[in-house]
Amino acid sequence: MSREILESGWEEMANRKPTLIQSYPMIGGDGPHSYLRNSSYQKAAIESVRVKTREAILAKLDLETPNSELSIYRIADFGCSIGSNTLDIVQNIIETLKLKHQQEETKGNNNEHLEFHVFFNDKPENDFNILFKTLPWYYLDSEVFACGVPCSFHYQLFPRNSIHIGHTSNTLLWLSRCPEDVCNRNSQAWNRNSIHCTNFIVEVARAYKKQFKKDMGAFVEARAQELVPGGLMIVLGLCLPDGVKMIRTWKGVVFDMIGDCLMDMAKSGIINEGKVESFNLPLYFPQFRELMEVIEQNGCFSIEIMEEVKHPMEDMSFSDDFIVSMFRAGIHGIIEGHFGSGVIDELFDRFAKKLNKEPIDFKDCQKDMQYFILLKRKVR
Amino acid sequence: MSREILESGWEEMANRKPTLIQSYPMIGGDGPHSYLRNSSYQKAAIESVRVKTREAILAKLDLETPNSELSIYRIADFGCSIGSNTLDIVQNIIETLKLKHQQEETKGNNNEHLEFHVFFNDKPENDFNILFKTLPWYYLDSEVFACGVPCSFHYQLFPRNSIHIGHTSNTLLWLSRCPEDVCNRNSQAWNRNSIHCTNFIVEVARAYKKQFKKDMGAFVEARAQELVPGGLMIVLGLCLPDGVKMIRTWKGVVFDMIGDCLMDMAKSGIINEGKVESFNLPLYFPQFRELMEVIEQNGCFSIEIMEEVKHPMEDMSFSDDFIVSMFRAGIHGIIEGHFGSGVIDELFDRFAKKLNKEPIDFKDCQKDMQYFILLKRKVR
Repeated sequence: MSREILESGWEEMANRKPTLIQSYPMIGGDGPHSYLRNSSYQKAAIESVRVKTREAILAKLDLETPNSELSIYRIADFGCSIGSNTLDIVQNIIETLKLKHQQEETKGNNNEHLEFHVFFNDKPENDFNILFKTLPWYYLDSEVFACGVPCSFHYQLFPRNSIHIGHTSNTLLWLSRCPEDVCNRNSQAWNRNSIHCTNFIVEVARAYKKQFKKDMGAFVEARAQELVPGGLMIVLGLCLPDGVKMIRTWKGVVFDMIGDCLMDMAKSGIINEGKVESFNLPLYFPQFRELMEVIEQNGCFSIEIMEEVKHPMEDMSFSDDFIVSMFRAGIHGIIEGHFGSGVIDELFDRFAKKLNKEPIDFKDCQKDMQYFILLKRKVR
Repeated sequence: MSREILESGWEEMANRKPTLIQSYPMIGGDGPHSYLRNSSYQKAAIESVRVKTREAILAKLDLETPNSELSIYRIADFGCSIGSNTLDIVQNIIETLKLKHQQEETKGNNNEHLEFHVFFNDKPENDFNILFKTLPWYYLDSEVFACGVPCSFHYQLFPRNSIHIGHTSNTLLWLSRCPEDVCNRNSQAWNRNSIHCTNFIVEVARAYKKQFKKDMGAFVEARAQELVPGGLMIVLGLCLPDGVKMIRTWKGVVFDMIGDCLMDMAKSGIINEGKVESFNLPLYFPQFRELMEVIEQNGCFSIEIMEEVKHPMEDMSFSDDFIVSMFRAGIHGIIEGHFGSGVIDELFDRFAKKLNKEPIDFKDCQKDMQYFILLKRKVR
C-alpha cells in the first residue's frame, strides 16, 4: 500500500477502484420483481441438496489437526444475494456442525461450547441493507455471529487459513465480465447475432470459455488461500452435460427469445441497433469436464464429491409468468446497465407476449445439469 | 435455539426479533443533510486523538501469549456509522499495528506476513450499502479484509476471545432506548417539560443514569467476552465533568431550544402536544466518574488510560448553519421515529430562526468534556 494512497482522501480512493469486475446484482428490495420474491428455482436447487450437504459434511469434515480455535467455526456463503436461500444454507451447515460436535462429545473428544462466525459475501452493489434487516433473531443468540463481506469473490476475502466451511450456489456461471472480444465488431469472436454463448460459433464459445476458466480459477485460488487445511468447500451450480450445446436447452431458447425482443425493439427505434449487437450476457454454462479441469489445475483441493444432482424442477414445464419473473429478476441489472433503466418493462412485456405466441416445447429441449461438488483443502 | 424457531420461515423469525433496542441511525445516503456530510465535529474529535491512539497501542499492546494466529489481527469499530471517520480510525490502527510489527521484526521476534480482519459494526438500520460502496480500494489489497456487522453493540457480536483491538467513538452517550419512566405521565420521573436529561430534576436524572449504566454495562461485558486476553479497547466520547449539569452546556441549550420549537409547533396545531410531552431524547452525557464506575464494576478490564482530551473545537463559537446541520444529522432519525417524517423541515427551519434571534453565548456556557479511555482485557 503506497503512502500516496494512504494519505489521499477516502472519496478519491474509492473512485480509484479499478472497474475490472462488472456488477449486476440481483434486484434488491422486496418488490414484485425482486430477487427476494423470484428465487424459487434457486431455492428448489438448494432444497434438493440439503440432505446431501449434511451427509457430506458429516462424512468428510475432519479438523482434528491441532487448532486452538476448534470451538469457533467460520462459515462463508459466497455470492449470497439476499433472502431465505442463503439463510437456509447457513442454517443447514450450522445444524450439521452441531450434530457432528454432539457425536464427538459422545466419543469424549470435545466438550467445548460451539460458536459460529458466519460471513455473507456478495459484491458491494448487493442490497446488504435488506439482507441485514431480514436476518433472523437467532443470529443474535450469542452462538451465531453474522457479518456481511462486500467484495467480488474473485478476490481473497478472508485472512489465510481462517475459513472452515465455504459454500456457493448458482454463482459460478456469472462471469466477472463479458469476454471483450464477443462485444468487439473487429474481432472474429464478435457475437453479433446473439446475446449469449449458444456454443454454435467456435470463436465465441472459446472467448466465453477462456473468461470462465480465468474467473473460476481465481475463485478456486482465493478459496485455497482462505480455507484451513481439511476445510470444506461446497459448490452447487448449473452446467451442461459434456457435448450439449446451450442453444438446445430451454434456458438457451429463452435467452434467444429475449435477444430477439431486443432486436425487435431496435427495429422499432426504441433502442439503438448497435447497442443490441454489442450486448452479451456475462453468463457461461460450462461443460461438466471444464469444471473439473479448473479444480484439478489449481491442485490445492481434493475432489471428494463431484456429481450430477437432479434439479427438482428439471422435468417441469414452467408457466410463462414463472419464466418471465425468474429471468427478469436475474438479468434486470445487466440489461439496465447496458441499455438504461427505461427498457425493462417494455422488454419483458414483449418477451411475455412472445412466449405466449411461441411456447417453449420443454420436452424437445435437451437438459442442462445441476452439479454438486465437495472439495477438501489439502494439507499445505 | 428451539426446533420451532429453526423450522419456521425466515420472515416470521425476523418479525419475532424483540424490539428491545430502539434504533435511530444517522441519516444515510450522501445528501445535504446526511451524516456523511455533517460529521465534521466527530471528525475533529477523532483527529485529535490520532497520535494518542497510535502511542497507546504501541505502548500497551502486548499479545505475546501463545497465539497460533499472531499474524492475523482482528479489529472492530463499534457503532461505525458511515463515511470517512470510521475508515480513518481503522486505517490509523492498521498502520500502527504494522509499525509495531516492524519493531518486533527488528528484534527478530516475528517475521510473518500480517493480515487484518476488519469489522465495521452498527445497527441493521445503518446504511451499510453506502458504507460498503465507499470502502477504499485498499480494503482489497489482500492484507485488509473488511466486513459489516449489523447488530446493536449491546450484544456480543463476535466469538469469544477473537478480537484484538476494539474501538468506539461518540457512541456510548446514545442509549439503547429512552428510560420508560421519563415518558410515562404517571411516573415521578415524567420529563414533561424537557426533551432531554437536563440534570435538574432528580428523578429524571436518576432514570437516565440507570439506563446509561445498564447499556454501558452491557457494552463493556460484551467486549469482555470478545476481546482476547491483552486485547485493547479504545473508547472516545463525550461526558460531563463531575458536577456540571447538561443544561449549562451549549449542547444542552440547543436541546432545550429544539424542545421549545417542538412545543411551539404543538401550539400551532402542527403536532400533538401530548406527543411532545412524551418525547425524550435517548441520549445521556454521563459524569466522568460514572464512566469509571461501570468499567470497574465489570472488572474484566484494566484501565490503562482514562483522561480528558481537549476537543479541537472546544473553544469555538459555531455558526448557526453548522449547529443546525450537525444536530439535524444526529437526531433526524429519532424525531422522525416519534413524530413521523413530515415535521423535520419545519422543525429545523424554526430552530434556525430561533438560533438567529437568540444566539447562544458560548462563553457563558460550561464545557462538556471529551474523554479518551484505553482498556486492556485482563488475562482470564
